This record gives sequence, structure tokens and C-alpha cells, in this order.
Amino acid sequence: MSDAVVRFDLPQSEIPHSWYNIQADLPRPLPPVLHPGTKQPVGPDDLAPLFPMALIGQEVSRDRYIDIPEEVREIYKLWRPTPLLRARRLEKALDTPAHIYYKYEGVSPSGSHKLNTATAQAYYNKQEGVTGLTTETGAGQWGTAISQACSFFGMECFVYMVKISYQQKPYRRAIMQVFGASVTASPSDTTNSGRSVLARDPNSTGSLGIAISEAVEAAATSGGKYKYALGSVLNHVLMHQTVIGQECLKQMELAGEYPDVIVAPAGGGSNFAGIGVPFVHQNLTNGKNTRIVAVEPSACPSLTRGIYAYDFGDSVGVAPLVKMYTLGHNFVPAPLHAGGLRYHGMASIVCELYDQGLIEARAIPQLETFSAAMTFARTEGIVPAPEAAHAIAGVIQEANAARESGDKRVILFNLCGHGHFDMSAYDAYLAGQLTDYDLPQEEIDAAVAALPVV
Amino acid sequence: MSDAVVRFDLPQSEIPHSWYNIQADLPRPLPPVLHPGTKQPVGPDDLAPLFPMALIGQEVSRDRYIDIPEEVREIYKLWRPTPLLRARRLEKALDTPAHIYYKYEGVSPSGSHKLNTATAQAYYNKQEGVTGLTTETGAGQWGTAISQACSFFGMECFVYMVKISYQQKPYRRAIMQVFGASVTASPSDTTNSGRSVLARDPNSTGSLGIAISEAVEAAATSGGKYKYALGSVLNHVLMHQTVIGQECLKQMELAGEYPDVIVAPAGGGSNFAGIGVPFVHQNLTNGKNTRIVAVEPSACPSLTRGIYAYDFGDSVGVAPLVKMYTLGHNFVPAPLHAGGLRYHGMASIVCELYDQGLIEARAIPQLETFSAAMTFARTEGIVPAPEAAHAIAGVIQEANAARESGDKRVILFNLCGHGHFDMSAYDAYLAGQLTDYDLPQEEIDAAVAALPVV
Repeated sequence: MSDAVVRFDLPQSEIPHSWYNIQADLPRPLPPVLHPGTKQPVGPDDLAPLFPMALIGQEVSRDRYIDIPEEVREIYKLWRPTPLLRARRLEKALDTPAHIYYKYEGVSPSGSHKLNTATAQAYYNKQEGVTGLTTETGAGQWGTAISQACSFFGMECFVYMVKISYQQKPYRRAIMQVFGASVTASPSDTTNSGRSVLARDPNSTGSLGIAISEAVEAAATSGGKYKYALGSVLNHVLMHQTVIGQECLKQMELAGEYPDVIVAPAGGGSNFAGIGVPFVHQNLTNGKNTRIVAVEPSACPSLTRGIYAYDFGDSVGVAPLVKMYTLGHNFVPAPLHAGGLRYHGMASIVCELYDQGLIEARAIPQLETFSAAMTFARTEGIVPAPEAAHAIAGVIQEANAARESGDKRVILFNLCGHGHFDMSAYDAYLAGQLTDYDLPQEEIDAAVAALPVV
Repeated sequence: MSDAVVRFDLPQSEIPHSWYNIQADLPRPLPPVLHPGTKQPVGPDDLAPLFPMALIGQEVSRDRYIDIPEEVREIYKLWRPTPLLRARRLEKALDTPAHIYYKYEGVSPSGSHKLNTATAQAYYNKQEGVTGLTTETGAGQWGTAISQACSFFGMECFVYMVKISYQQKPYRRAIMQVFGASVTASPSDTTNSGRSVLARDPNSTGSLGIAISEAVEAAATSGGKYKYALGSVLNHVLMHQTVIGQECLKQMELAGEYPDVIVAPAGGGSNFAGIGVPFVHQNLTNGKNTRIVAVEPSACPSLTRGIYAYDFGDSVGVAPLVKMYTLGHNFVPAPLHAGGLRYHGMASIVCELYDQGLIEARAIPQLETFSAAMTFARTEGIVPAPEAAHAIAGVIQEANAARESGDKRVILFNLCGHGHFDMSAYDAYLAGQLTDYDLPQEEIDAAVAALPVV
């Protein structure tokens, strides 16, 4: 393979000029989002305290393409187009006839795909005179990305970081501070939500739900000075990620192949939609027939074992109601090192695609994902984020199936981030301290018993 | 600047086919390396227990170009050619007429330029039937690279990691273990050197000098099964890094400019030589006149305040004697977060270039380097390794000088690695816990008093 090309690079002129909006092509439109109090569809006025009008407009737009502002493309140039690589060394190790390609989003300065939407969100807020953004972070990928995006546009950034992560991941806190963010351990005494939690439990180590409440409150009570940013789930967030799949379409052309199957992890859904949705578009409109597979953790299997019903977007019930595959907003997943995949629900777009039979889903247990990550690291050199390891485990299943059936399957996956800030998880895996969690049906039944809430 | 290109990518076919060997063009040849016992020039037989013949040959070769084996280029394809970027956002922040370009070696799977030579060293050892490599690591960049290179070639890897780092940097240990390396805290009870240290001081937290002794002993007593690998200083190591500068020459052509000044940090010298030496070649043979500036820490200023004399390559006096700018092998630099720059001496090639007036050197204090790193992170998005931050501080000095004099200076620097595993240093900087160290002349005088030893 001495002349074999393993990397397919696009010039910067090929950074997409627009985002692709699947809402234009969905056979059945998305169910409306409901107000958590009135249970009526939310309107722009309900969302205005939290988001700038441009993003509220994108959230409900049916335009197929939405222009990427030049100022955003200028920032994208720092790392986009991201590389597409053929994993020839992994193929050889698996002894598979399959061709395996991966899009590597970990080259972004923040280390994951999250910066694609963080940059866009910071830009639109800046345009509308917002001086700072509030957000929450658990594992820290999103907090890092939004801190960086704010620093690019000279905005303030307030990150409510789940207290246990704040204590256990000081380096994640530090990198956000390097980018100028103000990082507060949540629950804090800076918000009513935080104070009420602390009044009940002074030793609370926090949760993503509490951190969301604090970030939302901080924005909502700022008199328009600050707004709120979310890193996944919402339609506009998923749409911003379509630069990934659009670039892949051109790069697979450079490689002279077209994917038979695409694999991506699914937590909130933004990374999955980013690579998958432009190929769903090809399936719907260009007669293509690519299988698009979402991989979720066995310990938090919203698509494969949840029910499709209206549920709260957050854990505490102050966020809007969204129709989604959910394990119930009270569901607390077992400790899992892929923190980005511990969401009880799933983006509305991904749920509709799944419900309409346009994508597939499977759940994979934790140990299999780490084993896959080790194989990948030792062949291709990159230590994947635990979230990305779920895609790799799915890819290895596909590659093994191709070997057994003898077909030359072309597999594409999204390596959404590196694991440089997740080495404690690898350390635990190498020490034999990680386990699988066999989620009993009764636990799911109990969690969804309160549903549907509409 | 909406159409401005900020990244200059080369296709994989442009990965260099040969390394450039400055020994062919040095106006005055390198002084010989001497045996630490006999003080006579070392021959191949002296080195054979530690290195494969191919590398011993490269160490003394006067051939201008040495072919890069196809198997090595295949591995290079995983991340090379690395990007060259124009730091337009940094230029704007500095309000300078200078054009600032940076070569980014942090995209390598190991996160730094070290993998360029690690891959080559593992390859040549594998070719000669060596089944594993021993090495030492302090900060961990080199240990990570050699672990990864061994995993690419299916070789064993034994890393002696300075005990204090082993304890304080568990994630560096973990990433080496992910690549299959066996990591031992040094001093250990697995070697005579380690046992003798422990006998004197059971609580020793180790030093790079001790770890070198253990790694060398482990190779030398293995009956040829294992050999030893070093990450800097030696001629062949510096030569392997010239892929960096060779790519830069082509990429600057793409950018339509030629550097007036090149800045790189210098610890052992491999990263500096990697980007600088191909431009020295242009200066010597093509009438170019680029200033090439080595930046060292004020706390360990071997080029700017050391003496040019024969000294031991290691701290304990078992390694060969090399003529170099040195602070004395007994010199113990103040604690400094750029661990890769704490070497008492400097690569022979870099010293000769400096002595012959072909390159410049300057020393910069620690706080200025972290301040520069923060400016870079907030404009260009990448958190630099503390070693790379020294280059950035030098670049900012040059850019400020260009503003003051009003000249359109073209500056190129080597961003040799990211700081993802160095966040504890940033954390200390943000907390105001880092200090500068004003190295008194008496301390240097005392350390060099034992020199020259020949």
C-alpha cells in the first residue's frame, strides 16, 4: 500500500457556504415543542429571553439551506475542512474486506465537533448585541467549545459546571478559564435555583439538570445582556453540525467511494445528525441507500429502549416539552464514562428520522466501546473520546460482519473528538475498574411511568 | 479578510521523500563525540549495544539527503503533511504589520513533533530484529511518542518515567499504557542503577538522569533483544525532524512569502533544528538571509549563558561526552513548567550553528511565555505546550519590533505541540502561582567549574 492515500483533504474554499436543514425534506414535519407550563406550542416570544431571534428563526425554519455568515466561515478556517482518513491500518488489524473511513472532528481547537455550533451561536448573539452567554457543562466538551467561541467574538462566558466534575476535572475547568470563561461550580449561591438546592442539600455535588436551571436563570434575569446557549438537542444546533456530513460527501468523492453504512454515536444527537443528515438527504432525494446507524450506550438506550412521547428537555421540568424517544426525565443513567451520551432523551430530528424508519439504532455496552477504542488507538494512533468510541465499536461490528459475509462494505464514521481530557476513563479501564451495566426493564418502566405528560 | 486563506495544506504526495542532513553543509564539521571513560572518539562498536547500525550510520553520515523508508512515510501519512497557518487573528490582536505563520506539529497523534523521529527509530530497530525499545521520559511527550511508534510496529516498549512525574501525571502514564507500553516509575528495583539509588535514598522521587541510566542499562543488558531510544540531542534525531522545515519551504511558497525570521524553542534542539535547519541550508546555498532564532528559558539558558565545552550528555556521567553549550551536567534548573526545555546542554548541531554565527539565541522568562500562550490561545484557539509558548513569546517580541519599526516582517514559528496534558501548568499560571527565576551568575559559574572535563 505504499502509494495508498490515507487522507483526503479539501481546500478551505470547500468549507460549506450553507448549513443543510433537514426540516425542508422530512416526509412528516417535526411535532411542535410545547411550553412546560401551558403545554401549548411555544412561540418566538417564549424563547426570546434565552435565544437571539436569528437562532429562534433557524429553529423552526423550513428553508433547505441557510447561509453560513462569512464571519463564522472565517473562524471555521482555523480547523475546517477537517480531514477524512481511510483507516487502512485498522482494516488490516480486523482482517476485513470492508473499507473504513473516518471524519476527524478532534482537530478543532476545542477538540470536538462542538465548536461548529458554538461559533455560530456566539456570532448570532453578538450580532444582536448580547454581551455574554451562559451555559452548563458536565464532561466539559461543550463548555470548552462555547468558552472558546466567546473568546473569538470578545464576549463574556459563564459556565455552570456540575460540582462533581468541577472537583474531579480541574483541567477542564482550567482550559475554559484559559479562554476567559468564568466557571462556577453548580449548585452555586449565585442563582435562586442554586440556592434552593443548597438549602435542601448543602453538600449537593450537582447534576446537569441543576446546572441547566442555573444557566437559564442567569440568562433570563440579565435583562437581555446575557443569553443562553445549548450544545445539542435543538434543531439549529444539529443544523450547524451538517458542515461535517457535507464535507464528507465531497471527500468520499475524492476517495472514489460512497458509504454503504455510516456510524455515529448519539447522545443528544448533534454529532450523529452532523454526519448523518446530509446522507439522509441523499437517500431521500438522490436514490442512495446508505444505512445510517446511531450507536447509544446500553446503559442509556433512549432510541432502542425508550418510548416516543412528550417529555421535558431537562431533568427538573422547567425546559420545554419535546416529543422524543425518552427514558423519562427522571431516569438517572448508571455512571458511564461517555458523559456526553448520558441524556435521557434525544434530539427531535433524530427521533423523527428513527420513527420514520430513515435511520437505524443500536446499543453497545461500555466495555466493548473501550476495547474498540484501544484497537483504534493502537492502529490509527488517535485516542478517541469515550463518546466516539461508541461509533468505533459499531464500525468494528460492521467490519466483522463484512468479513463473515465477504462483502466489500464501505463504512464511514464520525470520530467526533479526542480523548485527551478523558484519560481517567482509560486509566480506569486499564485497571479493570470499568463494568457494564445490564439495565433492567423494570428500571425503564418505572422511569417512563410518568409519561406521557401531555 | 473574508476571502483570506489562513491554512496552507500540502497533499500527501508532498511528504518529503528524504531527510536533510546539515552535516553535509556545515562550514566546519561537528566535533567528535567522546567515550565517557577513555575520552577517545566513540566508534560504531561503542554504540552498537544501544542503537541499530542504520541509526549509528546516520549519526555520522555526511550525505546531504537520506531516503525516508516507505514504511515510515506510510505512518507519516496518518498526520503529515502538518498544516501551516497564518495567524491573522493574532496579527490583528498585536496590531502588527508583521505576517505571522505557524507550522502546527500538535496534530500528530502523540500531540507533538516527537513522533517524527520515534517512528523512524522504531522502524530501523524493527528492521534489525530488535524486539523492543527502552527509554526515559520526564514530562511525557517523548514517552508518548515512542510508545505509539512501538505500537505501530508491533514492538515492546519500556518507559522509565521519573517517579515524581509518574505520581503527578497519571494521565501521561495512562496514554503510554493505552499504546501498550510498560511504564516503570524510576528509580525502580528492576535495574542495578535504580537499586543503587534506592539503597542510598529509598524515598527518591527520581530525575531524568537516573531514568536515562535505567533505560540504558535495561537495553545494554538485554543481549541485543532491546535497544535504547532518545528523543532529542543526537544528530539522527534532529535530522528526522527536518521533515518539518522541508514542508514549510513548500508551504511558504503556497503562501507566496518567504520568512524573514524563524523562531523555535530549544531544549535538546530537535524541534528547533527540525524547522530551522532546512532554512539554514537555504541561507548557506541559495543566498537567503533568514534570521533563525532559538528561544530558551531564562532559567535554563545553555546557549545564551553556558560555555562551549565538552560535557557529559547525561547528569550522572555515563553518557558520551559531547562538545556543547552547557551549564554543566550538575546544573539543576529551577522548577519550570516547560519540562522539555530543562536540559543542561544542547544538541551538537545547534551548538555548532550558534558558534558559527548561523543562528541566533535568546532567553525568555517563564511568565512572559505563559502570557504569550494565553494571547495565542484566545486568538488562534490552540492551547500551546509550555515549550511551544517560548516560541510564541519570541514571535510576539518580533511582531512588536515590526510594529515599532513599521516593517512588514514575515515571521514563521514551530508550534511543536499542544498543551492538553499540561493544563496543571496553566492552572498554576491562572492562580498566580508561577514565578520567574532570576538565575544568578554565581550559580552558573559553580555548575561549569568542573568543565571542561576533557
